[in-house]
Amino acid sequence: MALIVQKYGGTSVGSLARIRRVAEKVMAAKREGHDIVVVVSAMSGDTDRLVDLAYGITAEPNPREYSMLVSTGEQVSMALLAMCLIGQGCPAVSLTGGQAGIVTDSLYHKARILKIDNGPIQDLLAKGNIVIVAGFQGMDAEGQITTLGRGGSDTTAVALAAMLEADECQIYTDVDGVYTADPRVVPEARRLPRITFEEMLEMAGVGAKVLHKRAVEIAGKLKAPLRVLSSFEDGPGTLITFEERSMDKPVEQPIVSGIAFNRNEAKLTIMNVPDRPGIAAAILSPIGKANIDVDMIVQNISVEGGTDFTFTVHREEYDKAHSILSAIAKEIGATEVRGNQKIAKISLVGVGMRTNSGVAQKMFTILGEEGINIQLISTSEIKVSVVIDEKYMELGVRALHAGFGLGVELKEEFDPSLEQVVSKKIANFD
Amino acid sequence: MALIVQKYGGTSVGSLARIRRVAEKVMAAKREGHDIVVVVSAMSGDTDRLVDLAYGITAEPNPREYSMLVSTGEQVSMALLAMCLIGQGCPAVSLTGGQAGIVTDSLYHKARILKIDNGPIQDLLAKGNIVIVAGFQGMDAEGQITTLGRGGSDTTAVALAAMLEADECQIYTDVDGVYTADPRVVPEARRLPRITFEEMLEMAGVGAKVLHKRAVEIAGKLKAPLRVLSSFEDGPGTLITFEERSMDKPVEQPIVSGIAFNRNEAKLTIMNVPDRPGIAAAILSPIGKANIDVDMIVQNISVEGGTDFTFTVHREEYDKAHSILSAIAKEIGATEVRGNQKIAKISLVGVGMRTNSGVAQKMFTILGEEGINIQLISTSEIKVSVVIDEKYMELGVRALHAGFGLGVELKEEFDPSLEQVVSKKIANFD
Repeated sequence: MALIVQKYGGTSVGSLARIRRVAEKVMAAKREGHDIVVVVSAMSGDTDRLVDLAYGITAEPNPREYSMLVSTGEQVSMALLAMCLIGQGCPAVSLTGGQAGIVTDSLYHKARILKIDNGPIQDLLAKGNIVIVAGFQGMDAEGQITTLGRGGSDTTAVALAAMLEADECQIYTDVDGVYTADPRVVPEARRLPRITFEEMLEMAGVGAKVLHKRAVEIAGKLKAPLRVLSSFEDGPGTLITFEERSMDKPVEQPIVSGIAFNRNEAKLTIMNVPDRPGIAAAILSPIGKANIDVDMIVQNISVEGGTDFTFTVHREEYDKAHSILSAIAKEIGATEVRGNQKIAKISLVGVGMRTNSGVAQKMFTILGEEGINIQLISTSEIKVSVVIDEKYMELGVRALHAGFGLGVELKEEFDPSLEQVVSKKIANFD
Repeated sequence: MALIVQKYGGTSVGSLARIRRVAEKVMAAKREGHDIVVVVSAMSGDTDRLVDLAYGITAEPNPREYSMLVSTGEQVSMALLAMCLIGQGCPAVSLTGGQAGIVTDSLYHKARILKIDNGPIQDLLAKGNIVIVAGFQGMDAEGQITTLGRGGSDTTAVALAAMLEADECQIYTDVDGVYTADPRVVPEARRLPRITFEEMLEMAGVGAKVLHKRAVEIAGKLKAPLRVLSSFEDGPGTLITFEERSMDKPVEQPIVSGIAFNRNEAKLTIMNVPDRPGIAAAILSPIGKANIDVDMIVQNISVEGGTDFTFTVHREEYDKAHSILSAIAKEIGATEVRGNQKIAKISLVGVGMRTNSGVAQKMFTILGEEGINIQLISTSEIKVSVVIDEKYMELGVRALHAGFGLGVELKEEFDPSLEQVVSKKIANFD
């Protein structure tokens, strides 16, 4: 008997018919003898409806009341799933984030989980219940309802799986796994049967919408075994593994596992910053204090002895970041703040990059051949990211997907295991 | 400075524009220097939407999960109102039933308030906040979300007003007060500037939809001063008073204050019950245990030595009551259970009946002249109720309204006070 945490996203519970299908899946796992904890998102469209109501009534919704409002979405879907299960004779109990013992800080609509009291869930499991937990929400120490931010249901599931020491955390979604690139943009993209935690983290961090980045971070930190599956089709999905691939079989290592991209970011540059120690901290501290997440950071030496300092933020926070930066610019004697919201970021991700130089160079060559100008570059051990004009995003992604051979058709021989499929694909271009 | 509890029903918060209007009313009262506690219902249509979801997923929704589901309706409207107020610079905090300290029993979707911990609301008021409380819900001792049943937002408001010792509990609704009869059925019906608590209780109990019966009961028990007003028009509404009108001015006492009527009930008769002590309890105990409220109870001696026992229940509970009664019939040796769902109840209400016999007789005469057969009669000191075929309901109500002179045009002289208007109207037919 295993303990399995299953998470169903908004599309998976998007209608009563779909909730019934989720109930079938949950009961099937229960019949196999497992203990099941289910984390649900709001029915698709419901969160948007609530967000529209909030911004319809006021331009800047109060964060506490915003959490109070949007947390109702999950409360609806979880109660419906519980009713559906109970109606079919399967004991089930739904719990709000607070009832499930999920304690967060008080940052309301961007709250972070501080701890989880396993007691309530374990008691209900011991009595034979399927326990359904509202994703995306918790309660602070004062008993106030908080929300983890959009996409936070993944975080709830992973944190619960880790705290309950679940055997697997299954993320059911509207895609059947992690792909080499978003199939809506790259039709020849292929599902990856496995991906390492580090790769998944980079993919999620740069816009792959399958898993929320924070969820992957927590899964990695707490070693929660994670699998991404489709709620609409049967299949093994993509397993997020913690093992590095063996170093003595370099042929099995893909150079690039996948390509992620997004238009969610905006670029800000503060020009002619006096080049002295501590200046980066002076610029970024007020941004951090305003709870704005900074992604790429690039600093160039400018010819006049000062320096230009560039970073990207989520596009929704561009205006806020711009006004903070303008104030900083005056304080520190910088000449100007420039911004650009019409950017896209494309990232190549793969553990193979560690042992294979030349990936970045090949990437720049491919983009150059398409006449795409690169505005910013940022690299890590297993990722190369570039910022380009947003209008070239699809063109660039498709060129890179083809250039790195990610869409190459596999010639399958004698019942290959999933692992073998991966090796063969890599062998094709390595 | 007074403490005022204001309750806004679903229609009053039925859209963002209407929530803005409610915010204006609340701020106006706050500007007058009062402390304000606001109780809100769900946006109109929202509860029906949630109930449809529940019955769409399963025929018999689990009561705990049902409360979990439908309690979200108020959580949405209260958060929106709080956001709207805060957005206009007016400090406000919304509280779920549980957060507001409303402790109920564990009867989930039909829960009763056991106690209210004033602390959370008083602390927030002391800090200058407008406190917005979700109507219709509470939390049991185990921390489970419960709901008070439909219409329960009135109950929340009245209970809070009593516990906080509010100076007035204002029930804002889509009508501008309590009428002599429902104006949709009787166009010449008139608003009553005052009505006694006992009359209001009888009116609410027999279908006047202005106030929930339980709310009136609690208001009466706890002496909470109550006023019914329109959220759409300015006006004094109807004050529910605790004073009896003076006995030495009988001319000022109306015989009949109002007529209430409904089609919400169904009639059940258990035939040829053995006529022995304790038989009524044997019949009604299982009904009560199933949480079915019984309204009218009539017992007749039947010719064969047995007795017929008739009572009415809410039409929604007819099937449940019928099956319980059929089992009882077998047990106690009764011959048959008969039922009729196509009934209507009409009630005349007025404290004047205490000192004026002949009201019932006049009522029967008027109905008889219209050819309407009376199936059941039940009387109290200040009420006469009859059950008739539902198809004659409107006809009967209009005939009674005219027959008792409730629609008589008033000749107003020299700036009459509300009280004078009442006396003159009565004088016209007494």
